[in-house]
Amino acid sequence: MRDFIIFNPTKIIFGWGVVENCGEEALKIGKKALIITGKNSTKKTGVLDKVINLLKEKGIESVVYAGVTPNPKTEEVDEAAGIGIKEKCDFVIGLGGGSAMDAAKGAAIVLKSAGNLWDYVALPNKKAKQIEDVAPIMLIPTLAATGSEGNPAAVFTNSQTQQKAAIYNPAKLYPKVSIVDPSLTVTVPPKQTAEGIIDIIMHVLEEYLTGDTDCDLQDRITEGIILTCIENAEKVILNPADVRARTNISLASTVALQGLPNAGRYGDWVVHPIEHAITGIYDNIAHGSGIAAVLPSYLRYLGEVKPDKVIQLAIRVFGADEYSDEQELPEVCVRGFEDFISSIGLANNLKDAGVKKEDLIKIADKLIEVSGIPGIIGNKDKLMKLLKDAYKE
Amino acid sequence: MRDFIIFNPTKIIFGWGVVENCGEEALKIGKKALIITGKNSTKKTGVLDKVINLLKEKGIESVVYAGVTPNPKTEEVDEAAGIGIKEKCDFVIGLGGGSAMDAAKGAAIVLKSAGNLWDYVALPNKKAKQIEDVAPIMLIPTLAATGSEGNPAAVFTNSQTQQKAAIYNPAKLYPKVSIVDPSLTVTVPPKQTAEGIIDIIMHVLEEYLTGDTDCDLQDRITEGIILTCIENAEKVILNPADVRARTNISLASTVALQGLPNAGRYGDWVVHPIEHAITGIYDNIAHGSGIAAVLPSYLRYLGEVKPDKVIQLAIRVFGADEYSDEQELPEVCVRGFEDFISSIGLANNLKDAGVKKEDLIKIADKLIEVSGIPGIIGNKDKLMKLLKDAYKE
Repeated sequence: MRDFIIFNPTKIIFGWGVVENCGEEALKIGKKALIITGKNSTKKTGVLDKVINLLKEKGIESVVYAGVTPNPKTEEVDEAAGIGIKEKCDFVIGLGGGSAMDAAKGAAIVLKSAGNLWDYVALPNKKAKQIEDVAPIMLIPTLAATGSEGNPAAVFTNSQTQQKAAIYNPAKLYPKVSIVDPSLTVTVPPKQTAEGIIDIIMHVLEEYLTGDTDCDLQDRITEGIILTCIENAEKVILNPADVRARTNISLASTVALQGLPNAGRYGDWVVHPIEHAITGIYDNIAHGSGIAAVLPSYLRYLGEVKPDKVIQLAIRVFGADEYSDEQELPEVCVRGFEDFISSIGLANNLKDAGVKKEDLIKIADKLIEVSGIPGIIGNKDKLMKLLKDAYKE
Repeated sequence: MRDFIIFNPTKIIFGWGVVENCGEEALKIGKKALIITGKNSTKKTGVLDKVINLLKEKGIESVVYAGVTPNPKTEEVDEAAGIGIKEKCDFVIGLGGGSAMDAAKGAAIVLKSAGNLWDYVALPNKKAKQIEDVAPIMLIPTLAATGSEGNPAAVFTNSQTQQKAAIYNPAKLYPKVSIVDPSLTVTVPPKQTAEGIIDIIMHVLEEYLTGDTDCDLQDRITEGIILTCIENAEKVILNPADVRARTNISLASTVALQGLPNAGRYGDWVVHPIEHAITGIYDNIAHGSGIAAVLPSYLRYLGEVKPDKVIQLAIRVFGADEYSDEQELPEVCVRGFEDFISSIGLANNLKDAGVKKEDLIKIADKLIEVSGIPGIIGNKDKLMKLLKDAYKE
C-alpha cells in the first residue's frame, strides 16, 4: 500500500429531503448564487424553482444558467461564468447530474481566476494555467453517478477539438458543501439511473483492477460498493421510488470517489479514458453507456493478462466457488457484468451502444491524443483488439 | 437511513514510515509541543526520542508527560495539562495507544479551557462544562485499536469514583493532523495486538447490530472491516512484522471510527459500556480483553431477541450457507467469534478474563450508574443474565 493522505474538507449533508437545508447552508458561503444546471430536467421536476425559493427565503439572490449539456462544453462554462461575473455572483451552485456539477466547478474557477476554462485543462502536449482562486462551490446532485459532490475533479469537453479531459485540484476544487438528497433522484428515468450505477461501479473498479494488490480493506470497500449497486439496481429498476434503494445508491455514488476506496493504490484508468474518447466523438452516448459498452471486454482482456482481481470479483461479487477451475473464473466475472448490464437495460458492447465500426480507429486515435494509451494496454494493436472485441460483431 | 453529515476535518497522513513527516506537520500547528505518552513502551521502542528529534530538526521544542496509564485517569490529564500550561506549550501531541491519544485530547481541552478535565465529562446525573477552546492536536498512534486519531471522542476514568465516561465533541475535538504509521505497531506484543483488533471490530459492530437496518453500504463496509481484521489477525499473530497485515489493520482502525461505517444509523452501544463498567472496576483488564469476554454472549442474546444482523454476519463473515436452518445461523456467528477470539489468544468469557463471579452485580450497578442500561437489554434482570452467560461457569 502506498502512502496517502485522507483529507476531504467537503461538508456532505446526506439524507432524504435534506435539500430543504440548502438556503441555510448557502448563507454560510455567499450572498448571490450563480446556479448552474441543465437545459430541462431540473425545470421539469421543479427542483430548480424549489432551490431558488429556498435561497430567497434566506435572503440569497440567484442567477440561473440553464445551458449545460451532457459532457459539458468549456464554452458553456465560460458563458455561465461570464454571466456570474456580470451579475456579481459570489458563489456557485451546481444543480443536476455530473455535467451540471462539473460545469459549476469550472465556472467557480473562471469566476475567480479569469481567462477561459480550457486554459486550465492540461493535455499531454498542453500545459495548464495555474488556478489562482475558486469561488465557493455548493453541489446538489439530482442523479447518483459521478460523485462530483465529494471530490475535487471535473471533466470537460472542448467541442472545437473534440477533446475531453479532466481538471483535478485537491487544493482548490473541493466543494464547500454538498447536499446529497436521494429524493431528488426518484424522477431519474431508468436508463439514466442505470448509466449512473455503471459509472459508480467503474469509479471504484479502475484502481481496484490494476492497482497495488495489498490493499485488503480498500478491496472490501470496493466490493461493498459494487454489491450495494448491483443489489439495489434491481430494486430501483422495478420501483423507481424505492427509498432504500435510491438512498443506498446515492451514498455509494458519493463514497466511491470521496477518497477511501482508491486510497493507497495506483492503478491504470482504462475504461474512463476510452469512454472519454468515445463520447468525445459521439456526443449522443452518455458516459455510463459508454462505460457499460467497454467494461466487459476490458475485464476479458485482464482475465488474460492480469487475472487476480477479475477472479476475486468472480468469487466475492458474483458468488463463484473459490475452488472452481482458475481458468473459468474470469469468465464468471465477465459474464456477471455482461448480464448485469443487460439486466438494467444498457448495451454491453459498442455495436449495440451505437458506435460505428469504422470509428473504432478514430476512438483509438482520440485516446492516444488526449490521454495516451494506458500502461496495462501497452500499444495500439492491443487497444484496437480490445475495441474490436468490445464491438462484438 | 437517517440524515447525517460527513465532515471530518482531520488530515490523516497514512503509510509505512510516515512518522518522518511529524516535524514538518507540527510546524503547521504550533511551536512548542506537549507530548503525552505512556510510561514505558514509546521510550523502550525509541519512538518517543525519534519524535522529539524530528520536532527539534524543525525547530520545535517539546515537553514530555510520560505518565498516562491504561484507561487514562482524569488526574493524569490534569497533571499533564498543568505542565503544558507552565511550559507554555501551544499544541499537544498524543503518542501511543488509545490511552495516550485520548489523554492528549483531554489535555488539549484543559490547556485552553481551564478547570479540571472531569468538569467536561457528562454523566446521567452530572452536566458537563462547555468546552471553550482546544489546543491543536496531533495524534501518532503506535497501536491499531481505538481509532482516536480520526474522531472527536475520548474516554476517561475518574479513579476516585471508579467512573469511566466519554467526551464527544465534533465541533472541537477532531485532531488537526494524525500521522498513522503502521511501522510503529510492529513492536506491539501479540496480546495487545489482539486486543486492538477486537476493539476495532467492536467499534463497527455496535451500531451494525442494533441500528437502522436499511444501511446496505454501511453494512458492507462494516463487514469489510471485520473481514480485513480477521484475515490479517491470523497473519500478524504468525509474523508480527508482516507489513501488509499491520498496514491493513492500522487502516481498519482509523476507518472504523472515522464516520462512514456508522453513518446514518443509530444503534445501542452495549458491549462498550459494559466493558467500561468492567475496567472501571478491574484496572488490570485491558479494553480489548473486556470486549472479547462479553461479545459472544451479547451476540447469543441478540440471536434470541434481534437475530437479523447476527445471521447476516454468519453468512457474510463466517461463510455460513444462507440456506441453512435459520435457527442455527446465529450460533454460527457466536461460535465464529468465540473461536476467533481464542485463536488470537484472548479469553472469550469473563471468568477466563479474570473477573470474579461476585463482582458481576457490581459491574451491573456500575453500568447503571455511569451510562444506564442499554435499550436493547432493557432491564437489570436481563443484564445480569447476559453477564452470567458471559461468565460461563
